[in-house]
Amino acid sequence: PALPPTAPAPVAPAPAAAPVLAVVTPPAPTASKPGKPKPWYDRLQLRGYTQMRVSEVIDGDTDAPAGVSRLRSVHDAGVGEKGNFNFRRIRLALQGDVSDRMGLYLQGEFASAVTGQANGERRENFFQLRDAYADVYFADRTIKLRVGQSKVPFGWENLQSSSNRIAIDRADGPNSAVPGERDIGIVGFYTPPAIQKIWDDLAKDGQKLFGNYGAFALGVYNGQGTNRTEKNDGLMKVAMATVPFRLDGLGGPFVGKVLELGAEGMLNTFQPEVRTGGVSARAYIDNRVNLHAILYPAPFGIQAEWSWGKGPEWDRLTQSLASKPLSGGYVQAMYRVKHSPIGAFIPYARWQSYRGGWKTATNAPRISTDEIELGVEWLPLKEFEVTMAYARMRRSEADERRSGVARGDLLRAQIQWNY
Amino acid sequence: PALPPTAPAPVAPAPAAAPVLAVVTPPAPTASKPGKPKPWYDRLQLRGYTQMRVSEVIDGDTDAPAGVSRLRSVHDAGVGEKGNFNFRRIRLALQGDVSDRMGLYLQGEFASAVTGQANGERRENFFQLRDAYADVYFADRTIKLRVGQSKVPFGWENLQSSSNRIAIDRADGPNSAVPGERDIGIVGFYTPPAIQKIWDDLAKDGQKLFGNYGAFALGVYNGQGTNRTEKNDGLMKVAMATVPFRLDGLGGPFVGKVLELGAEGMLNTFQPEVRTGGVSARAYIDNRVNLHAILYPAPFGIQAEWSWGKGPEWDRLTQSLASKPLSGGYVQAMYRVKHSPIGAFIPYARWQSYRGGWKTATNAPRISTDEIELGVEWLPLKEFEVTMAYARMRRSEADERRSGVARGDLLRAQIQWNY
Amino acid sequence: PALPPTAPAPVAPAPAAAPVLAVVTPPAPTASKPGKPKPWYDRLQLRGYTQMRVSEVIDGDTDAPAGVSRLRSVHDAGVGEKGNFNFRRIRLALQGDVSDRMGLYLQGEFASAVTGQANGERRENFFQLRDAYADVYFADRTIKLRVGQSKVPFGWENLQSSSNRIAIDRADGPNSAVPGERDIGIVGFYTPPAIQKIWDDLAKDGQKLFGNYGAFALGVYNGQGTNRTEKNDGLMKVAMATVPFRLDGLGGPFVGKVLELGAEGMLNTFQPEVRTGGVSARAYIDNRVNLHAILYPAPFGIQAEWSWGKGPEWDRLTQSLASKPLSGGYVQAMYRVKHSPIGAFIPYARWQSYRGGWKTATNAPRISTDEIELGVEWLPLKEFEVTMAYARMRRSEADERRSGVARGDLLRAQIQWNY
Repeated sequence: PALPPTAPAPVAPAPAAAPVLAVVTPPAPTASKPGKPKPWYDRLQLRGYTQMRVSEVIDGDTDAPAGVSRLRSVHDAGVGEKGNFNFRRIRLALQGDVSDRMGLYLQGEFASAVTGQANGERRENFFQLRDAYADVYFADRTIKLRVGQSKVPFGWENLQSSSNRIAIDRADGPNSAVPGERDIGIVGFYTPPAIQKIWDDLAKDGQKLFGNYGAFALGVYNGQGTNRTEKNDGLMKVAMATVPFRLDGLGGPFVGKVLELGAEGMLNTFQPEVRTGGVSARAYIDNRVNLHAILYPAPFGIQAEWSWGKGPEWDRLTQSLASKPLSGGYVQAMYRVKHSPIGAFIPYARWQSYRGGWKTATNAPRISTDEIELGVEWLPLKEFEVTMAYARMRRSEADERRSGVARGDLLRAQIQWNY
Repeated sequence: PALPPTAPAPVAPAPAAAPVLAVVTPPAPTASKPGKPKPWYDRLQLRGYTQMRVSEVIDGDTDAPAGVSRLRSVHDAGVGEKGNFNFRRIRLALQGDVSDRMGLYLQGEFASAVTGQANGERRENFFQLRDAYADVYFADRTIKLRVGQSKVPFGWENLQSSSNRIAIDRADGPNSAVPGERDIGIVGFYTPPAIQKIWDDLAKDGQKLFGNYGAFALGVYNGQGTNRTEKNDGLMKVAMATVPFRLDGLGGPFVGKVLELGAEGMLNTFQPEVRTGGVSARAYIDNRVNLHAILYPAPFGIQAEWSWGKGPEWDRLTQSLASKPLSGGYVQAMYRVKHSPIGAFIPYARWQSYRGGWKTATNAPRISTDEIELGVEWLPLKEFEVTMAYARMRRSEADERRSGVARGDLLRAQIQWNY
Repeated sequence: PALPPTAPAPVAPAPAAAPVLAVVTPPAPTASKPGKPKPWYDRLQLRGYTQMRVSEVIDGDTDAPAGVSRLRSVHDAGVGEKGNFNFRRIRLALQGDVSDRMGLYLQGEFASAVTGQANGERRENFFQLRDAYADVYFADRTIKLRVGQSKVPFGWENLQSSSNRIAIDRADGPNSAVPGERDIGIVGFYTPPAIQKIWDDLAKDGQKLFGNYGAFALGVYNGQGTNRTEKNDGLMKVAMATVPFRLDGLGGPFVGKVLELGAEGMLNTFQPEVRTGGVSARAYIDNRVNLHAILYPAPFGIQAEWSWGKGPEWDRLTQSLASKPLSGGYVQAMYRVKHSPIGAFIPYARWQSYRGGWKTATNAPRISTDEIELGVEWLPLKEFEVTMAYARMRRSEADERRSGVARGDLLRAQIQWNY
């Protein structure tokens, strides 16, 4: 009689080009016989992606006299600066389920500069932490408790991995709440199975979701931002709810479509770094709400978010910091071509606007942004993506010593490889 | 007739929560057929652990006028400072046997700040080396020659991985010899099989050992400390002996118990960094001995160490550096509960005292420490540990410009996840 | 009837001690069934090597008054400085074929210091990027397009991995074009199958090749050097050709021998960092050619390269930067002993000379180098190498404030472990 093979093939992990933060809840590990733990490489895997960019200002205020804004972006050091190729992100993550009860995510970024290294110049590409968290699972994985440094659940696009985002950069409005997107703390996520089912179906269809978070979240964090030293005993509190709805019931053109609606709230106090050195002595009110809506592209989709709140901002009149109103968001339309002779591609158009402080820049300068971006994301290989975009920018530089708004027309190209 | 499966299961590696530095000598790799080397992931594995802390000073001198000590600890930046969550360690190591003759250990730490990055503020969480060494095996692995950066065999607790230590931090006395615990050099270890057998039995029982060192060690190192540039041609010489004894022969309550006794010696000269910039022109005598004794908890255990010696220390009278006497150590009692409905736990009590210089702080300030810590380490999951501790501290701040001793009562909690 | 095993053994990856950058084109991945992607650890692997050195100046100008050159080398911080053991390289790379169409190489270096961390002193061993590129394959892998940060194809020895180089350091002449060897850009490689076959045969014989580049290369790069911020819109253009010839046709002593001949050219402008802070306002012409010839050791071999060109250089008379002529190269003879009772070893002798600027040092000082090195590389284990070398150096220090040439006789030992 035949003996069954004693060595089952290792379960195939996610394919190379799958999103780094897959929303699909991983299947519970198959019960392993006692004393036969899975080898480390079937519990953990190394993944990541790299983004290399080239920016070309067709026409714009790349330079300006002292006191006047130059064309710059808080999201992309390549905008308006001299230079050719630059790395926007070089990510490497170790992730997986250490056991049935606990998951791990540990991600670093190679594209982190260290300043003041020789002759006042910086050196690029030191490896710095982005995420370091453990997920402890409860209630059949519908609930997870996340401890460590992780993305703050404020803003749908903030949570979505940059490897999945269609547009070149995040929008200023929702991102002004959490530049760098991460903080240290403890957060709980709950996802009812019915919602998980909708997301799983979307993921199977190849839709770009927002990652392995949850439908409902409640968390506390230090509140001083990614990789910054906490300066006060106050905690940042954040809550999120996001719910996808199948629109089939509406019939006709809505069959097979999914609309996701959600909202987030944040209560925080923040001490910006100041030009005289260190951080401000006072902590400023930094409270916000954000709304989001996504009609997943099938093939046409729309995505929009808007934030309102108060945050630290430099007051030019009094030459001091204060907590002032802010608001901003974006609307994006996209059209998904799943198959074509040259590979999948998604043309998109996006408008964004923001007025308010940028709290992680020195002295929390007020910035004013109005931008239109037209672009296309193209996947000649599933592990190799090219995004080309034209942008018409009206941006004030994030420097309280410069005023006014710089204008510019840009072409940007981004190459991304996934591993 | 049945065909035997051609693909034997990969040998199961250590389970997730095993100590990062297991003392159990790995079994010699099974002889592989010539031309069929083991795949990389069966020779090497990625492992690590993360420690996140919250400290709360119930009552104490968290602030003080200039010139007076504030409540601070050389081991934990969270003590006395404002703030909530902070990472104490985020480790990732690549380790394994590259071949039958050579082992590898390469470990980095994500919780390393880089100072002076913007407005004089630091940025947290850059990835920095801890260990980079190769072990060359001789004489059936009873002897190994370790080259590279590795832990200096001075002090039992210094060698034990922080992932295995019960108490929140190492004790000042033995640790004052090797803050950061590591140095670059060459060290030989010898472990007689009879000693290895006792350690293997202890490890099988789940005891917290001191790692994959040896019973007898002799090494030379640069002597300037972890990740610091060597400044003189002198070598640090270190010797260690540690021997476990089974106490069964004593009968009665001693059956099944193991006592380990040992001693270490160090000869070194050291050039502390000075406040005027750079390191001291002179190298100061830095010679020490340390004794240790451990009664492994079964279920009750005791652990104690004490160091004596001379080392660099700031002299307030002459306002200059000198080599001065130092001494200090600790006694710890613990009780091991291996199984309980809520998981394993170990309550412990610890007293420590130290008087002497702290050589890796600017100007090698004299510190005076007296501390009692009461705590419990609890493992709700084997890969997820929680330690809660109360400490009554009398500590002088490690700053030669501040004098006196700060007092404080603290609660600290640490969450650790292993991978 | 017997069931065929369902779990084929993972394909054995390269053995531990194979060169980190193997020139052998990896076999095309075996066609995997649709929906059954290879697990991540069969697509990617972690590899690396560490080099630890000890330098001893027998006799030489290790110190000198202000204004006069001390014995220092741009390649090895251990030359002439006080100290014992130091790490020259601690490399870790993730590499492999993400798919049939795309390869990945992501390499970091732990032996990277960050300056100005405390009391003006630096801290060693932060992890910094070396390579981050993707290869997209075309035409049966004879053509590949490499995007990201990678080695610039200028100079045969520059391309060869330091883990494979016999001599302790690279030669100043060819290396002056690309200190650090890498830049960000896009480069295409083409290798005719007939050339690949010769290289594959050499690799099978254990010869030290120059890595997984190509016979013909054409690339554009930022041109500001490894991990430095690009400062101008100009691109560096580089072209390379290298062709191995079998000498069997010459008969007699030439049977079984291979000669490789090649040339490279570079067009660039470069802005050196200046002592007053930042980089020079002007970009200086930085154009070069290089010739190389290698007779692979069988058992006797010769290797030689020479560079000519113009590059940025500090002019002492005018006390300003200018673009000035430069030239330099080396000749190396070696004798390969493939098998011996103590393992493989290669004695070698090498002469080098260089006159010209060193563009990545502050103010691009002119350096003058004449050096003879006699050494032997010995492999007691294939994953553990020892190189011992004597050098007679005449070197000017790379500091425009010091003049003259320092002399010295050195012994250097390097231990390298591969993983």
